[in-house]
Amino acid sequence: MGAPHTLDGWYVYHEFRSIRWDKWKALSAAQKQVILREWSHFADEQRKVQAERQGSYGQFVIAGGKADLLIIHMRPTIEALSDLKAQMARTRLFDMSESTYSYISVVELGGYNARPGVDIEQDEALQARLKPEMPTHSHVCFYPMNKRRLGADNWFMLSEEERREFMKAHGMIGRQYAGIVKQIISGSVGLDDWEWGVTLFANDPLQFKKLVYEMRFDESSARFAEFGPFYVGHQVDDAALGAWLTGTRADP
Amino acid sequence: MGAPHTLDGWYVYHEFRSIRWDKWKALSAAQKQVILREWSHFADEQRKVQAERQGSYGQFVIAGGKADLLIIHMRPTIEALSDLKAQMARTRLFDMSESTYSYISVVELGGYNARPGVDIEQDEALQARLKPEMPTHSHVCFYPMNKRRLGADNWFMLSEEERREFMKAHGMIGRQYAGIVKQIISGSVGLDDWEWGVTLFANDPLQFKKLVYEMRFDESSARFAEFGPFYVGHQVDDAALGAWLTGTRADP
Amino acid sequence: MGAPHTLDGWYVYHEFRSIRWDKWKALSAAQKQVILREWSHFADEQRKVQAERQGSYGQFVIAGGKADLLIIHMRPTIEALSDLKAQMARTRLFDMSESTYSYISVVELGGYNARPGVDIEQDEALQARLKPEMPTHSHVCFYPMNKRRLGADNWFMLSEEERREFMKAHGMIGRQYAGIVKQIISGSVGLDDWEWGVTLFANDPLQFKKLVYEMRFDESSARFAEFGPFYVGHQVDDAALGAWLTGTRADP
Amino acid sequence: MGAPHTLDGWYVYHEFRSIRWDKWKALSAAQKQVILREWSHFADEQRKVQAERQGSYGQFVIAGGKADLLIIHMRPTIEALSDLKAQMARTRLFDMSESTYSYISVVELGGYNARPGVDIEQDEALQARLKPEMPTHSHVCFYPMNKRRLGADNWFMLSEEERREFMKAHGMIGRQYAGIVKQIISGSVGLDDWEWGVTLFANDPLQFKKLVYEMRFDESSARFAEFGPFYVGHQVDDAALGAWLTGTRADP
Amino acid sequence: MGAPHTLDGWYVYHEFRSIRWDKWKALSAAQKQVILREWSHFADEQRKVQAERQGSYGQFVIAGGKADLLIIHMRPTIEALSDLKAQMARTRLFDMSESTYSYISVVELGGYNARPGVDIEQDEALQARLKPEMPTHSHVCFYPMNKRRLGADNWFMLSEEERREFMKAHGMIGRQYAGIVKQIISGSVGLDDWEWGVTLFANDPLQFKKLVYEMRFDESSARFAEFGPFYVGHQVDDAALGAWLTGTRADP
Repeated sequence: MGAPHTLDGWYVYHEFRSIRWDKWKALSAAQKQVILREWSHFADEQRKVQAERQGSYGQFVIAGGKADLLIIHMRPTIEALSDLKAQMARTRLFDMSESTYSYISVVELGGYNARPGVDIEQDEALQARLKPEMPTHSHVCFYPMNKRRLGADNWFMLSEEERREFMKAHGMIGRQYAGIVKQIISGSVGLDDWEWGVTLFANDPLQFKKLVYEMRFDESSARFAEFGPFYVGHQVDDAALGAWLTGTRADP
Repeated sequence: MGAPHTLDGWYVYHEFRSIRWDKWKALSAAQKQVILREWSHFADEQRKVQAERQGSYGQFVIAGGKADLLIIHMRPTIEALSDLKAQMARTRLFDMSESTYSYISVVELGGYNARPGVDIEQDEALQARLKPEMPTHSHVCFYPMNKRRLGADNWFMLSEEERREFMKAHGMIGRQYAGIVKQIISGSVGLDDWEWGVTLFANDPLQFKKLVYEMRFDESSARFAEFGPFYVGHQVDDAALGAWLTGTRADP
Repeated sequence: MGAPHTLDGWYVYHEFRSIRWDKWKALSAAQKQVILREWSHFADEQRKVQAERQGSYGQFVIAGGKADLLIIHMRPTIEALSDLKAQMARTRLFDMSESTYSYISVVELGGYNARPGVDIEQDEALQARLKPEMPTHSHVCFYPMNKRRLGADNWFMLSEEERREFMKAHGMIGRQYAGIVKQIISGSVGLDDWEWGVTLFANDPLQFKKLVYEMRFDESSARFAEFGPFYVGHQVDDAALGAWLTGTRADP
Repeated sequence: MGAPHTLDGWYVYHEFRSIRWDKWKALSAAQKQVILREWSHFADEQRKVQAERQGSYGQFVIAGGKADLLIIHMRPTIEALSDLKAQMARTRLFDMSESTYSYISVVELGGYNARPGVDIEQDEALQARLKPEMPTHSHVCFYPMNKRRLGADNWFMLSEEERREFMKAHGMIGRQYAGIVKQIISGSVGLDDWEWGVTLFANDPLQFKKLVYEMRFDESSARFAEFGPFYVGHQVDDAALGAWLTGTRADP
Repeated sequence: MGAPHTLDGWYVYHEFRSIRWDKWKALSAAQKQVILREWSHFADEQRKVQAERQGSYGQFVIAGGKADLLIIHMRPTIEALSDLKAQMARTRLFDMSESTYSYISVVELGGYNARPGVDIEQDEALQARLKPEMPTHSHVCFYPMNKRRLGADNWFMLSEEERREFMKAHGMIGRQYAGIVKQIISGSVGLDDWEWGVTLFANDPLQFKKLVYEMRFDESSARFAEFGPFYVGHQVDDAALGAWLTGTRADP
């Protein structure tokens, strides 16, 4: 009943923020532009890191009252993520917002993805999945989850074979959404309050609902999954973020 | 054991607010009128969108200490709801209040509502239910809910037939309230923290209690329903909202 | 397995407040008297409404750190309770305090209380219970509760007969406290987060403990009751409230 | 299956506070001394009440981030405890701190402690336990608890005999700590959110851990106990409290 | 079914802090240096205490939004930890941050570690484990946990032999990480809200994930463990802490 072997890639930091509208609205248009330019400069640095394949970066507007913004960073180390936290705290946009949720995890693939006899570090396809560029889909969905350990529904007491069967059925649902929903699974056992973080990307957010709903009827979720909060939003470039914050239309 | 097919309509955003009375009361009568006129202007724009069948809008005073106001928007996209969030944040009424709860979901109908051979987009009755105008009843009730997955009471492990039987009995209770309580069911799997949002409308709020209580004795709720917070209130036009806030009587 | 028939009376609003001592203590003795007189004026209006049997009113000092004050209003409509919420928010005493809990419900009696052939509206004894004057006992206890739906302990899956048996035994305990503890049961299914609110009145608060403890050993509570927060306090007239707030002794 | 008979003594109010260090540190040394002298005056009054056996008083510094201070009052009535709450709110030390937890209960002894034919009010040993002086041990531990009502582990569904057997075994563990750990059990059914409060006193805080750990393996706790938050701290006289707050050493 | 004998060492205080960036950023570079020097002075005192084997000290930057800093102190008494709490509150760095979580526990070893006939106080190896110096690994992980008492999965109802078997298997996993992950187990029954605190140290934080994940498949965790929040971070000396706070690079 040993733990399944995993392949682990970049560390991931999801930071959810709510705008302090009182403070933001008290600024002049010029002050707002200074803040947005400063953020743009920060974001461009992250995009450069991504272009150099040293990390990954995305920014999103979140729907509803739980958060307004989601910033996702991936980096090779925990320290780099903590440095980015402090760097962001020094921006004026972060003065204008507060943290409402966050998540620390590490990109995780099943060990079976490692082809025998091939050095993982040299397997480019695998490296691209372990150290992924931020997907460019228009929409994002994030939720953390656990495998349940409750009476007869205890995932961690299943045999390796049972778990494999469940995951296979589970994976087949995911495969039906290939090309429609891209998912990044990151493990957080020992790192944050749930066991996994799930980040989904799609151009049609209805597909998040369809995928998660379909999986819920699959025994691996129906009996064994416990879910944390769900967040949904859309990806924004700096112009769209500025337009959303200032109420002007972004230039197309 | 596949997921039931659903029809999905407009996205829905419930925003619950509490008035910051300290700030509101510090204003002069004239300042209050400016704020109310600004809100009225915003609300009128939403009503115009509704008149053009491009969205839906409602505003309500909520009873008790959990919230004072509920604003409901429906739109074809998540981005439109996030834009409305920022637009509202820019109003002065939102300066005078704070978010206490919110919900993101999408209007949902059972797939069996689609008549074979009929294009859903062309089925006007269906379109009216998927993209509903805000009901005009005097009272509103909102609560989110899950179907339970707990030991022997696991909705998602039932057979399709069992679920259909349960939902049929459930629906028969609802039907007894036809013409008395109007309900809008919206799905939120993958979008927000519960699986569904339920918004009820009636002219007599006692009917909310009677309907929900009767359903609780139905096996589909008794064994399988988990409920979030409940909110109840009454619908207000701009005059009634202003009167409620300022303590003057609204003109009849 | 239909829902039991209920008789429903006035809507009830419990508002729990904590004093903002920093603000209160910064006031001069004269300013405090202005605030207390304003509140007295508000409370007198409520007492007049009660005297005219159009509603019900009570004010209490709550023990411990969860709240300082409890205000109870009963009215024929939800709107009236929301109007009272706004009216109270406009008082200066409410500036000096903040909401820590609240509850919305409706006075509820078992349908069996309706005598066959008698119009409920004309049954004075019943009317007095559905639209109760605030009891004058010195002490109050409030808690919300659910009937449990958990595995084999599912109240809503019991047969009508089983429920009747349980409630009969339960009622017999209550009857032993007749004349000692007065209880007002209010239903909140569809209105607030629990299914019922229980408000107890007695001249000796130890009787609250004895009654609730005895009931807990009754199977209907032992197996089927889930309890929310408990509050206990004593009833105060305006002089006693003022004395409590200012630290002067109330005139006897 | 009736409730066990209990003997009830003084009402108990536990008030946990956290220092607002920002405010405290902004004061001059002289201002701090004024505040400490005012508190000393208040505490001395309580000690006088205790000396006259009209109540009981203790003050403690709590370890960790959940609270800094614990004040315990016992009095014959709930009103007296609410009066003390307002009195303390009027002190300047309470301006410099905020409530982080509190508990309302009443000292409780098993009814079997009443010797047949002896008037409880005249039984001095019993009276000393029902209206206890604050123990003088150096350390304190507080936690609230419930007896569980969960499936097969339902304390309130046990027969009286079963409960007696369990409590006897439980009591034997407690007896091993006689002279080492003094415990005051107070009932809070109907008064606060848990069923009992447990306050332990010892000169070596490790004995709290040993006692509670040993009891956890006893079936009455292992199967039937549910625990709230735990607090641990040490008793301070006014000089030690002042020294702790100001960072000067207390005179030995 | 008695409680296992434990050996108990130093008391442990974990204090988690979040930086108040608004306040910190409002300071001049010189003011920041004054604050950092003051903290350095405090930290040096703690290191001196550690060098004299009178206690233990560590400081860490935590990843993600739940906290920014973790300070760990160990001391022979609870009072010493409370004194350190007040001492830290008097530093200016603590003005610039707020407590987000904390934990009080005592270093705990299984009683079987005591060799028969050897005085524990004279057993140097044991003393080093009971009163441990802060490990110097680059990374830290902290989480509190309980042993479960739920239906058939009740740790405290197992026989001593069953528990021993489970712990043996559990310990074998830990042993595989010898030299890679150092763990300090501290008991908190009767002291804080969970039964144990687990503090792990490693040079590669991925090893935390691997170790905790592997243990989760072990029956002692799979069936019997309940986990609180998880925190992960890296150890910082004063220069690195200052560099993290000010955004300058630490001198290598």
